[in-house]
Amino acid sequence: MSSNISEIEELIKLISKLPGLGSKSAKRIILKLINNREELIKPLTNSLMAVYKNVQRCNNCGNLKSTNSNCICFEKKYNQICVVENIADMWVIEGSGIYKGYYHILGGTLSTMNNKKEDDLLIPSLVKRAKNNSIDEIILALSASVEGSTTAHYIQDALKDSKVKISKLAQGIPVGGEIEFLDDGTLFSAFKNRNSVS
Amino acid sequence: MSSNISEIEELIKLISKLPGLGSKSAKRIILKLINNREELIKPLTNSLMAVYKNVQRCNNCGNLKSTNSNCICFEKKYNQICVVENIADMWVIEGSGIYKGYYHILGGTLSTMNNKKEDDLLIPSLVKRAKNNSIDEIILALSASVEGSTTAHYIQDALKDSKVKISKLAQGIPVGGEIEFLDDGTLFSAFKNRNSVS
Repeated sequence: MSSNISEIEELIKLISKLPGLGSKSAKRIILKLINNREELIKPLTNSLMAVYKNVQRCNNCGNLKSTNSNCICFEKKYNQICVVENIADMWVIEGSGIYKGYYHILGGTLSTMNNKKEDDLLIPSLVKRAKNNSIDEIILALSASVEGSTTAHYIQDALKDSKVKISKLAQGIPVGGEIEFLDDGTLFSAFKNRNSVS
Repeated sequence: MSSNISEIEELIKLISKLPGLGSKSAKRIILKLINNREELIKPLTNSLMAVYKNVQRCNNCGNLKSTNSNCICFEKKYNQICVVENIADMWVIEGSGIYKGYYHILGGTLSTMNNKKEDDLLIPSLVKRAKNNSIDEIILALSASVEGSTTAHYIQDALKDSKVKISKLAQGIPVGGEIEFLDDGTLFSAFKNRNSVS
């Protein structure tokens, strides 16, 4: 199932590396691209180049920012910071519409496995941000995994001198979750954090 | 669920236009790209540019060819030409390994709907190819649809003066097909083309 054309083989190889795409979907994409050279290949090339050149990680909050403008984390607008592990997590929270405020994107978790240091995770910069007068709450929205909990503890410790309130997301039964299929950890949290209803 | 960065919004919009991809998968792809600037964005940009510049449709057989080299249809190698509607069809046949020979890619079908003319479909060039001494069979591998059949008839007519054998793919029950769920057309073909087994 080869195209015999080195340029296309190369593009198939690259597209297949993207998440969710294999060589079959890469081929379908390439046919679409080739049939729409001016409307797709050219703009896509330019757009990729623009992202390559103009999008970078903000040193203050870890979010993506355009080199052409200041990061939104420098605006004075909100009084909460939501700490997340990565941009995908931020997008999910943002998409849900339940939170409006600043974000702080660690870019990973503290772990012996991945050698991430507190500087990589922008924790010193979070401590600095927390000292800003306008901030009154830091919400830790980290995974309920060992790494997530370790990182959360580390951040709590780093923030112990600041006067800001620190909270973390509730643990319990997910909406629609059936008791029968819950793992012990979730069940434990659900019992421990049970709410009085009478 | 917006990124607030115009470069990324633009790239999401473009990637979402590709087959099988929506804005969610586009975002996942973009995160992967951003985390692998040098290993992915740069090579992908170059590769797209190379395809844009160096890949074109061969005027003789309709297949994609590199501008840097001659199309394989000019080699003297096979004595059969398989006529297909598009490159995806060719890739499927090629992938199956059941046919080794030249291809002729029409790039569509004759139809009152899409205004394709015989020149667009490279039918005159197919007639010329059929006159080549080395060719002894032309296999029509077109869709079993009204447009496919119309196009097949048209090609048969165009080739009537050539001495080449013309065949088309058998119609019948697909492998694994259950009689109960066959449409009338397939059932009709299966009866009409029934083979003696005794």
